[in-house]
Amino acid sequence: MNEVTRLLKLHKSIRKFTDQKVSDELINEIVSCGQAAATSSNIQATTVIRVRDDKKREKLAELAGGQGYVSRAGAFLMFCADLHRPQLACELKGGDFSEGMTEHFIIATADVALFAQNCVVAAESLGLGICYIGGIRNNPQSVSELLDLPDQVYPLFGLCLGYPDQDPEVKPRLPLSTVLKEERYQNPDDTSGITAYDEQIREYYKSRTGGKKDSCWSDEMKALVGKESRPHMRDFLRKRGFLMK
Amino acid sequence: MNEVTRLLKLHKSIRKFTDQKVSDELINEIVSCGQAAATSSNIQATTVIRVRDDKKREKLAELAGGQGYVSRAGAFLMFCADLHRPQLACELKGGDFSEGMTEHFIIATADVALFAQNCVVAAESLGLGICYIGGIRNNPQSVSELLDLPDQVYPLFGLCLGYPDQDPEVKPRLPLSTVLKEERYQNPDDTSGITAYDEQIREYYKSRTGGKKDSCWSDEMKALVGKESRPHMRDFLRKRGFLMK
Repeated sequence: MNEVTRLLKLHKSIRKFTDQKVSDELINEIVSCGQAAATSSNIQATTVIRVRDDKKREKLAELAGGQGYVSRAGAFLMFCADLHRPQLACELKGGDFSEGMTEHFIIATADVALFAQNCVVAAESLGLGICYIGGIRNNPQSVSELLDLPDQVYPLFGLCLGYPDQDPEVKPRLPLSTVLKEERYQNPDDTSGITAYDEQIREYYKSRTGGKKDSCWSDEMKALVGKESRPHMRDFLRKRGFLMK
Repeated sequence: MNEVTRLLKLHKSIRKFTDQKVSDELINEIVSCGQAAATSSNIQATTVIRVRDDKKREKLAELAGGQGYVSRAGAFLMFCADLHRPQLACELKGGDFSEGMTEHFIIATADVALFAQNCVVAAESLGLGICYIGGIRNNPQSVSELLDLPDQVYPLFGLCLGYPDQDPEVKPRLPLSTVLKEERYQNPDDTSGITAYDEQIREYYKSRTGGKKDSCWSDEMKALVGKESRPHMRDFLRKRGFLMK
């Protein structure tokens, strides 16, 4: 364990921030750290949009399902997977952009996440708290229109940053032995790690809510993958030029 | 700038390692840091497979397009997007897994990348060098069979880790102003940032190769997105239960 691994292990999502804004200098430093992440074939498929305008922030909070901290955090960044820029570059050299490849979608999506996680680590090292906002995919078309995203660009998630006004406990994770396997995916139907974790996280939720929240990971997963989730995503992405082949 | 942001900005991919193995203790620490990353709706959709067996490592190196460091690095981890585990949990509670949702694919893919980037930051802070191996998607079906991946699990990328036996220069990135936008995606067809970067990276490649490599970012992008890339990915993913709706 060193200072960096200690920092990483102390991560928790922050949803309550002080009123202090995050300076441009800090945002530039954070995004520069994002740029330093590995990027597949140097594609650099990440575009970040900093939204400051209050009205726009309120609209985004509403589109994300009424998450007020989207408008109240010290800064808000939208992370977009951007194949438009590689397309421009390709066309500068007389190439024909190969539209809609699933592989390019995967590269771009992973690229954004690597970039964003570097931003998060940088932000937390600088004393900020963060919260990823996947809720913007509730209304990806409206978000795209609000931010003038061209085709071949889609909003993967937002990121709230700010000075924390809360200090929640670190949330326990699945046992290491459940997520780290040796040589191959052994015993795919073994549920012992899941059930052990179910009890652990049930206690965590109970203690955090004074007994009010009595659910476990399997309950959460049933709610999440036991039904259709954002069924508009495929059509939205195809309309924007992704996932066509 | 602090120690963490300095570390992030010094990232470079390492493709030449000493013979020293990476200890189990270090790998456990690194993967624990990965687990601490944010995870969408707590889905924890990442499974990591540590491959030690020499024959398997050689096979993976070959499947990744002949990247020898896959077999020679001090450790090799395969990062998989895993919806099988949430499915198991959902079924434990009597739920019916909603198969093939594009949204679940996005969540799982981003989850793995956030997790992996935390591993990378931890590894680099501990003195290791790393290289992501997207090349395993050249042959995702064979990789899946080699590692006994069940349906609803796909290999996103591998990761070589080890003690560096080289010290390459940090690769320059696109101008910050090109990737960080204000309020909206302004001037989508402005190529000035791209052409400025083209000249910068051309010089970087030239100086690194003693003048032998004379190409720029736009050339790379033409080669990457100006043709079909891993066109098998869509069918592979559908066969494994992803991206059906």
